[in-house]
Amino acid sequence: MVKIGILGLGTVGTGTVQILLDPVGRHHLLQSVEIRRVGVRSIDKPRAVDLPSELVTTDLDAIVCDPEIEIVVEVMGGIEPARSLILKAIEHGKHIVTANKALIAKFGDEIFTAANQAGVYVMLEAAVGGGIPVIQPLKQSLGVNRIGRVTGIINGTTNYILTRMTVEGGEFADILADAQKLGYAEADPTADIDGLDAGDKIAILASLAFGGRIKRDDVYCEGIRKIGAVDIAYADKLNFVIKLLAIAERVEGGAVSVRVHPTFVPRDRPLATVNGVYNAILVEGDPLGEVMLFGPGAGAGATASAVVSDILAIVGVRQCHISREEAIESPHNALHPLLSCNHTEYSQMAPLSSLRSSFYVRFLCLDVPGVIGKLGTSFGEHHVSIESIVQTGFQGDRAEIVVVTHDVSEADFDSALAEIGSLEAIDSIPSIIRVL
Amino acid sequence: MVKIGILGLGTVGTGTVQILLDPVGRHHLLQSVEIRRVGVRSIDKPRAVDLPSELVTTDLDAIVCDPEIEIVVEVMGGIEPARSLILKAIEHGKHIVTANKALIAKFGDEIFTAANQAGVYVMLEAAVGGGIPVIQPLKQSLGVNRIGRVTGIINGTTNYILTRMTVEGGEFADILADAQKLGYAEADPTADIDGLDAGDKIAILASLAFGGRIKRDDVYCEGIRKIGAVDIAYADKLNFVIKLLAIAERVEGGAVSVRVHPTFVPRDRPLATVNGVYNAILVEGDPLGEVMLFGPGAGAGATASAVVSDILAIVGVRQCHISREEAIESPHNALHPLLSCNHTEYSQMAPLSSLRSSFYVRFLCLDVPGVIGKLGTSFGEHHVSIESIVQTGFQGDRAEIVVVTHDVSEADFDSALAEIGSLEAIDSIPSIIRVL
Repeated sequence: MVKIGILGLGTVGTGTVQILLDPVGRHHLLQSVEIRRVGVRSIDKPRAVDLPSELVTTDLDAIVCDPEIEIVVEVMGGIEPARSLILKAIEHGKHIVTANKALIAKFGDEIFTAANQAGVYVMLEAAVGGGIPVIQPLKQSLGVNRIGRVTGIINGTTNYILTRMTVEGGEFADILADAQKLGYAEADPTADIDGLDAGDKIAILASLAFGGRIKRDDVYCEGIRKIGAVDIAYADKLNFVIKLLAIAERVEGGAVSVRVHPTFVPRDRPLATVNGVYNAILVEGDPLGEVMLFGPGAGAGATASAVVSDILAIVGVRQCHISREEAIESPHNALHPLLSCNHTEYSQMAPLSSLRSSFYVRFLCLDVPGVIGKLGTSFGEHHVSIESIVQTGFQGDRAEIVVVTHDVSEADFDSALAEIGSLEAIDSIPSIIRVL
Repeated sequence: MVKIGILGLGTVGTGTVQILLDPVGRHHLLQSVEIRRVGVRSIDKPRAVDLPSELVTTDLDAIVCDPEIEIVVEVMGGIEPARSLILKAIEHGKHIVTANKALIAKFGDEIFTAANQAGVYVMLEAAVGGGIPVIQPLKQSLGVNRIGRVTGIINGTTNYILTRMTVEGGEFADILADAQKLGYAEADPTADIDGLDAGDKIAILASLAFGGRIKRDDVYCEGIRKIGAVDIAYADKLNFVIKLLAIAERVEGGAVSVRVHPTFVPRDRPLATVNGVYNAILVEGDPLGEVMLFGPGAGAGATASAVVSDILAIVGVRQCHISREEAIESPHNALHPLLSCNHTEYSQMAPLSSLRSSFYVRFLCLDVPGVIGKLGTSFGEHHVSIESIVQTGFQGDRAEIVVVTHDVSEADFDSALAEIGSLEAIDSIPSIIRVL
């Protein structure tokens, strides 16, 4: 039997216990997994699973030091004490399974370095895309390709809100409030709405896709607060849908760009069809082409499925240590090369300003005929070539002008926009959204 | 270095060689793979890859017996000599990577039994869904779920034809002819058009999803020859699209049903958005929910990506043999349990007549008012409950009546239809299509 300790018995912890206590009809190796301890904050809280009381403890430290435990499953979330407990567990030679994207995105460096030194695995399938198998394919099968780009819809809350805005035509604030009531958004929605959660996840995917560590602070994150019903309507008219995309790509010269921002997605692209709380990750590789992995990005069952798949992967290879002696001498070499983390260098990052992108911009202005000429001139002077300028409506007494550019340098676009924003005829620039 | 021999240098073989000869920027383990021999039918044929001439041989037998070769990659296709060469390679202790779905579907039993006895792997990611990672997720991560159903669009040719019929409104025969001209359908399109290729693939997926071997003859295969432009139009009107689905599901009582047939798919389901030559596999599991894996189902690059991912998987675990002695005594136990084939029993199969399904039926008839009453009576007497009867048009002097049933027993439906078909007022029943 492989004995495991679980830190946390919230939604995901409970789902994990439910699978492990009921292995019949699942992969036969799960029958050799035994839950030895489950760590909780409060013993007395009523639980959805029936665990013998001697298994449940508030002494999390004892779990990560327990010599009988081989695998520690961290599903408590948050940075501390999760980080310290994981490091201590690694020090004690435990393999780690975690669903904690924020922790890995911020402290992955420290954790993977410690794990490689100790010769243990840190598995994180559940950290991105809930039950969708994406971490393992990126580490293994898809890795035979030269990955060019990974594009994800990897935050269920924002995709739910954008989908409802598209279907119902409502405003962001109203639908957010309703989503909170229905449990699709948290009371403090910042991490989701501002793209921070997606930023954590795409940092992880980028490090796997491009084989280099990513500093979380280098990930540009722009959320969906500023998306208006009117932008959704324009997108629809232009045959796009607006999605919060998390993008990791290798740019010219080999540097890596990692970013999260709302994006106009052409309606005939696979990602455009991903609605509601569903997640999807599109991987583009050479010679593979495009593969999209789609499924439930959150929820107890889906996330627990990913957690248990990581336990399974470790159980499958734990007899693979070459030999105890070799393992102690060179711990990392004793690890299965398709499960362990193989990169230790940081990726070279491409700054946002070095990228090229197409933009949708919405202006509110006073004097339409004059403005269109000035817009054209300013954009032109900054080498921003325009695909279309449309004057379609009014917001109060302000005329609304929508511009879609061709692919242009972000730096050029920024300077053009700074100039245009200072024009007297321009009242405001409520929306700037990149176009895929 | 891990030395491999490749049988076949057609499209997939060439793609495989191209990846292996150019490993920079891909998974680092590929740098330890060396092509030792490539077997071809004709040495003189011009090739798209530059291989040293001493590597290329017509002596396939020498490849599968070469003591230096650890992995034999079979990408020649067809049943013989592929089957004999694979068995001989296994006998000589080689691991096998194959893209040959027809061979595995028909002779998997013999091949996996031999492989388990010899303690070698038989890997087949490329056999289903081209570059989409589906075999490995089903064997590993998704396997922690109780799989309820696997539904695939896994034949690119038929999906291309159905997509064009939907977009253009054309007839099957015309679009097939054009697809043949364009290279999307073969000169003899039988295996694709009649659902046999999809049948091979779903048999393989079913065996992995449900952990039991599948007799290929037990897979019901119905193709798309009889789908008319008028059916596509009715589907559209009713908010469906017609797809050739390959379905493997566990039915009540635990038996397994495996079948291929054209299906009305509601337009808001993920599979309905899979168009052209793309493939997708939808896996439903407990507690996971629905996961869909989408991508290019064929083509040199995509299929080669899958072939090389299997090579990678073997290279990753080949040092995992517990010990030479143990391995010889009990070869199967020396294999990585997540890569090897673990089932040896046949699945119990549910006959088609035991299933329940909803049906779309199109009748051509002489006397409409009388017929509708008789249809209702016959269906009712056979416990077939009807969702809608619509009389919408005429084909020549025949009135066209379309019936959609609720979920009914296939056996009841068959007997109702036998009775209705013999009515004098019924001219013919040109279409019977199941509804998802």
